[in-house]
Amino acid sequence: MAGNGVLILGLDPGSRVTGFGLVREISGAASLVEAGTIRCSQEQEADRLGHIFSELAKIIARHQPDEAAVEDVFTAKNARSALKLGQARGSALAACALAGLAVSGYAPTHVKKNIVGQGRAEKEQVAFMVAQILGVRKPDWAKDASDALAVAVCHLNERRFKRLTGSP
Amino acid sequence: MAGNGVLILGLDPGSRVTGFGLVREISGAASLVEAGTIRCSQEQEADRLGHIFSELAKIIARHQPDEAAVEDVFTAKNARSALKLGQARGSALAACALAGLAVSGYAPTHVKKNIVGQGRAEKEQVAFMVAQILGVRKPDWAKDASDALAVAVCHLNERRFKRLTGSP
Repeated sequence: MAGNGVLILGLDPGSRVTGFGLVREISGAASLVEAGTIRCSQEQEADRLGHIFSELAKIIARHQPDEAAVEDVFTAKNARSALKLGQARGSALAACALAGLAVSGYAPTHVKKNIVGQGRAEKEQVAFMVAQILGVRKPDWAKDASDALAVAVCHLNERRFKRLTGSP
Repeated sequence: MAGNGVLILGLDPGSRVTGFGLVREISGAASLVEAGTIRCSQEQEADRLGHIFSELAKIIARHQPDEAAVEDVFTAKNARSALKLGQARGSALAACALAGLAVSGYAPTHVKKNIVGQGRAEKEQVAFMVAQILGVRKPDWAKDASDALAVAVCHLNERRFKRLTGSP
């Protein structure tokens, strides 16, 4: 881990599209490793959840990240959509846990404040800053992948801060 | 499958306790194979979801059920509890899908009507009827396991009905 720095898998699970982003930090500098989406077009709900699990397991096996990070969710339009979102999250988090990955959760306002400096920043501002931090001039990743990268970058910042301040 | 009839795995996923019940039907008669619960005491949320997945995968590997059935959920106290319930369901359904099990979902009123003949039956009535149908005099299974057996028995009844009426 030391020579290659630390590799973080950021996740933005959704019932139709799950974004993922892998960010490596070496000597305090963050760089993009891969970003993309897992899209679910299966007819059966259980098959969509199985697809999220198996695709994520492949990504984890390919890159061997050290830790994972995901946005915590507190609200939803209604119970139905909370349930659907929860199912996608459940499948994704199970895949992380079975691969032995520790998963840190961050509130959406926390991610925004961490990256833009303001908890009520617009999504576009967050996406812009994430691309800047990763040194990517013309990001071509999907919105969900960008959200996943944001939480990965947030986690790296939190880790560094905790290490510097010696907090647990 | 013909000689041994058909084996159904019923599930009642929950963030703390997931009930499961395996019911075999041979020549129209249903019998209990196993019923129990998967309990999650892990501190981390992702680890609890990973535990549901791996325990369920073991149960499926041990019994090799032909199909699975689960109660559909439409309501919850609030978005937070819907999300937690959804996560447990997501992990459980992903485990079924990865094992190649087709999962049928039934509304809670549907299960009650199917087993007791009345969509607004009390939980205790359902539990009593499930034990009767399975020929178990003194059921010693947990509430969540009983709910899982109920949806498995409901699915067997629906299957039989569909076969008899030739519906898809």
